[in-house]
Amino acid sequence: MNGGMICYLLGKIMELTGAMMVCPFVVALIYHERSGIYFVACGAATLALGFLMSHLVRIKKRDFYARESFVITALSWILLSVAGCLPLYLSHEIPHFYDALFETISGFTTTGASILPAVEEMSHCMNFWRCMIQLIGGMGVLVFMLALLPSTGGQDLYLMKAESPGPSVGKLMPRVRQTAYYLYIIYFVLTGLEIICLKIAGAPLFDSICTAFTTTSTGGFGVRNDSLASYGPGVQYVISVFLFFSGLNYNFFFCLWMKRWKEAFGSEEVRLYRRIFFAAVVMITLNLFLVHGWEGEESFRHAFLQVGSIMTTAGFSSADFDLWPSFSKEILILLMLIGGCAGSTCGGIKISRVLIYLKTVGKELSQLCHPRSVKVLKIEGKALPHNVLRSANIFLITYALLFVLSVLLISLDGFDHETNFTAVASALGNIGPGFSAVGPTRNFADLSVMSKYVLMFDMLAGRLELFPLLVLISPATWRRR
Amino acid sequence: MNGGMICYLLGKIMELTGAMMVCPFVVALIYHERSGIYFVACGAATLALGFLMSHLVRIKKRDFYARESFVITALSWILLSVAGCLPLYLSHEIPHFYDALFETISGFTTTGASILPAVEEMSHCMNFWRCMIQLIGGMGVLVFMLALLPSTGGQDLYLMKAESPGPSVGKLMPRVRQTAYYLYIIYFVLTGLEIICLKIAGAPLFDSICTAFTTTSTGGFGVRNDSLASYGPGVQYVISVFLFFSGLNYNFFFCLWMKRWKEAFGSEEVRLYRRIFFAAVVMITLNLFLVHGWEGEESFRHAFLQVGSIMTTAGFSSADFDLWPSFSKEILILLMLIGGCAGSTCGGIKISRVLIYLKTVGKELSQLCHPRSVKVLKIEGKALPHNVLRSANIFLITYALLFVLSVLLISLDGFDHETNFTAVASALGNIGPGFSAVGPTRNFADLSVMSKYVLMFDMLAGRLELFPLLVLISPATWRRR
Repeated sequence: MNGGMICYLLGKIMELTGAMMVCPFVVALIYHERSGIYFVACGAATLALGFLMSHLVRIKKRDFYARESFVITALSWILLSVAGCLPLYLSHEIPHFYDALFETISGFTTTGASILPAVEEMSHCMNFWRCMIQLIGGMGVLVFMLALLPSTGGQDLYLMKAESPGPSVGKLMPRVRQTAYYLYIIYFVLTGLEIICLKIAGAPLFDSICTAFTTTSTGGFGVRNDSLASYGPGVQYVISVFLFFSGLNYNFFFCLWMKRWKEAFGSEEVRLYRRIFFAAVVMITLNLFLVHGWEGEESFRHAFLQVGSIMTTAGFSSADFDLWPSFSKEILILLMLIGGCAGSTCGGIKISRVLIYLKTVGKELSQLCHPRSVKVLKIEGKALPHNVLRSANIFLITYALLFVLSVLLISLDGFDHETNFTAVASALGNIGPGFSAVGPTRNFADLSVMSKYVLMFDMLAGRLELFPLLVLISPATWRRR
Repeated sequence: MNGGMICYLLGKIMELTGAMMVCPFVVALIYHERSGIYFVACGAATLALGFLMSHLVRIKKRDFYARESFVITALSWILLSVAGCLPLYLSHEIPHFYDALFETISGFTTTGASILPAVEEMSHCMNFWRCMIQLIGGMGVLVFMLALLPSTGGQDLYLMKAESPGPSVGKLMPRVRQTAYYLYIIYFVLTGLEIICLKIAGAPLFDSICTAFTTTSTGGFGVRNDSLASYGPGVQYVISVFLFFSGLNYNFFFCLWMKRWKEAFGSEEVRLYRRIFFAAVVMITLNLFLVHGWEGEESFRHAFLQVGSIMTTAGFSSADFDLWPSFSKEILILLMLIGGCAGSTCGGIKISRVLIYLKTVGKELSQLCHPRSVKVLKIEGKALPHNVLRSANIFLITYALLFVLSVLLISLDGFDHETNFTAVASALGNIGPGFSAVGPTRNFADLSVMSKYVLMFDMLAGRLELFPLLVLISPATWRRR
């Protein structure tokens, strides 16, 4: 284990986190809020700690491998969350440490599950910080660092692989730094565009900025108590459209940018995403219209927003979908599990894996009928490498095991099955609200402290696609060979 | 597709079914019940049809392969169910055809889900028939046929593979007929022993016979309205113990018989089964004792019986476990998904697959930490063949897909998530009761006709481990090459 290099990179992450606390401080200055002082204090402390970590440790060699990169990724997300929660906790705007940590992990992992009964009582700077950490967490801190810092020695790809979602990391450009750079450009352009559109549609500037931060990161924190319900239809449509965009693989935007139209629109993953998305919108619209008794436009608007919000794992709500008919609810639960495209900011199992699973079953069936035929599994026109198939299978199994274990632990609180199941689905998929006791009009405050820690673990595990966190806690990692 | 051979074997199955209707007729004679006449009529008609099918068709060649064996298996189970439901339907003891078919499929697949609000109102011969079809379905009709009939031409193994549960079929003896013979001997000995023990423990003879039929087949149909709740503790303990036995791989009993003690007790699958079983009993006992406020013996007795009943996918109930604490309920839901050992009469995903999944994840984690180490996945001391691993993965994916699709269809009825989820888990795992609206004190009568057909499909798919039924409905099977 290359301890020096781990310490160096963690220090860099801390420096970055400390520096970013300047932004909420500026917001505090604008709104004349005294709690801004906590950002100065915490920012300075974090910066100093980061500086010590990255400069005082002697690095014997700069090389590191998969194992180290998993450990770095897991540890940096944990450190980040602890540092990020301090202003919320020290300012007493969130009285308990575990609640502040829950809120921050929920932020960085872009889950959006909240323990706050009333966000409007928070100061502007704290609300801005909540939304900003979603923006930071959305594309990934390590990827961000790769785009900014000088190369760490040619091992960048390991880091990017450990942090980025999806069964295989598509490098847009030959070099990792360039890839990270392009990803962040696309990300910021999308966010900027949404701020402008929301302002035009009539939302206040502060709301526009915060909501855009949490839309493109598919985080889902809101600055109003009722999430998006009190915004006008125009604002809701803008958010829905940007949610749909945010669920797409960033390869798609990159291909558009490079004018590789055919590649952009021909992607199998994007096509499947589009089909599932609109099939869900149509089915829920019909269900709301026919069974729930809503008007046509109203049904469509809420269906569109809710499908976008749940499938991209953002977790906004424009209505109390816990009261919707059973069919609509089951579709939403299914979308919770699926999630958006790989290479997006979404959580969940990811469309590309679903594509692999569907094709595997199709191939198996045809092979059972015609045992002597030879059929190659192709994704995006290329034969699927065996290790990608294997890792997709192992991912599903591990996801299921962690899911089951978490549900058992949460069930000790005594809530109903719907609460237990959707709380875990929501945390592992980085969504936000679930159903029943953790439904859109409720929050996670009523859960026991143990359940909150279980869900924090699940949120981190879901965001980092399970393995970094499991490697961190696996005894084999720390055993000397 | 070898149509002649398919028709011949289906005919044989029909002859067998017709012949077996003699048994409930004898019961009707003993109890002087007039509805016995329907067994004579249906039995004769089925026998005649079977005779026609197996004797009038010209068989060009006797060879058949995997595809045919899947089709034969699927079709024979469907035909069997239709023939078996006729006495129930024609006697008007179950007024609707779809309800009679549901009850019969639930019987043959050893699910034990019932649409009957009060089984005690049924005549003895009909109740006996309900329990007898579970006995027939438990070990498998095709396996039974293989044990009785002269060899069908060396292709028996395909049939046995298609019908028998588990990731790989263990042949106890070099020849399939012998294997089938030994399996049935063990099966009947277990059943006979249980009848004697139940009689000694104080149950009436009719109840003893019927309950033993549905215990060793892990079916779970009862002859009392409250399942097992009104029997004394002695009877309940006897059933619990035999349930535990019935969840074991039959290889275990075969090894005992052959005095291969080490092999019997050293099996990894049996060990994992035992651990999960008793861990669940202990956890539920403690939960019932500490949270639910029951006495120690009462907690243990109900926990033991319920874990046995759910894990072996029988589905009896000695108490309304829908009212138990959330933790106990989640454990039972988990056991519903897992099921018993492969090579038993249980449904579910099966312990041997769970073992494969756990080992895969363990291997992956160690490989991530030490990428250059080479580790071979071993099960029962032997390297796991790649095709078994592959088929276990595909099984999980297909199970999940069918699960999700079924939940969506069921949800159109408008029940809550717990009902939808556990109804499907119960049908696919061949368990019987679920929770909430399909809980132990309720039944499946309230579901819509469409939902009932969906669950019938799931019960058959679960019993035959998905692929025979999927091959049957897959267009590729019927396409000419």
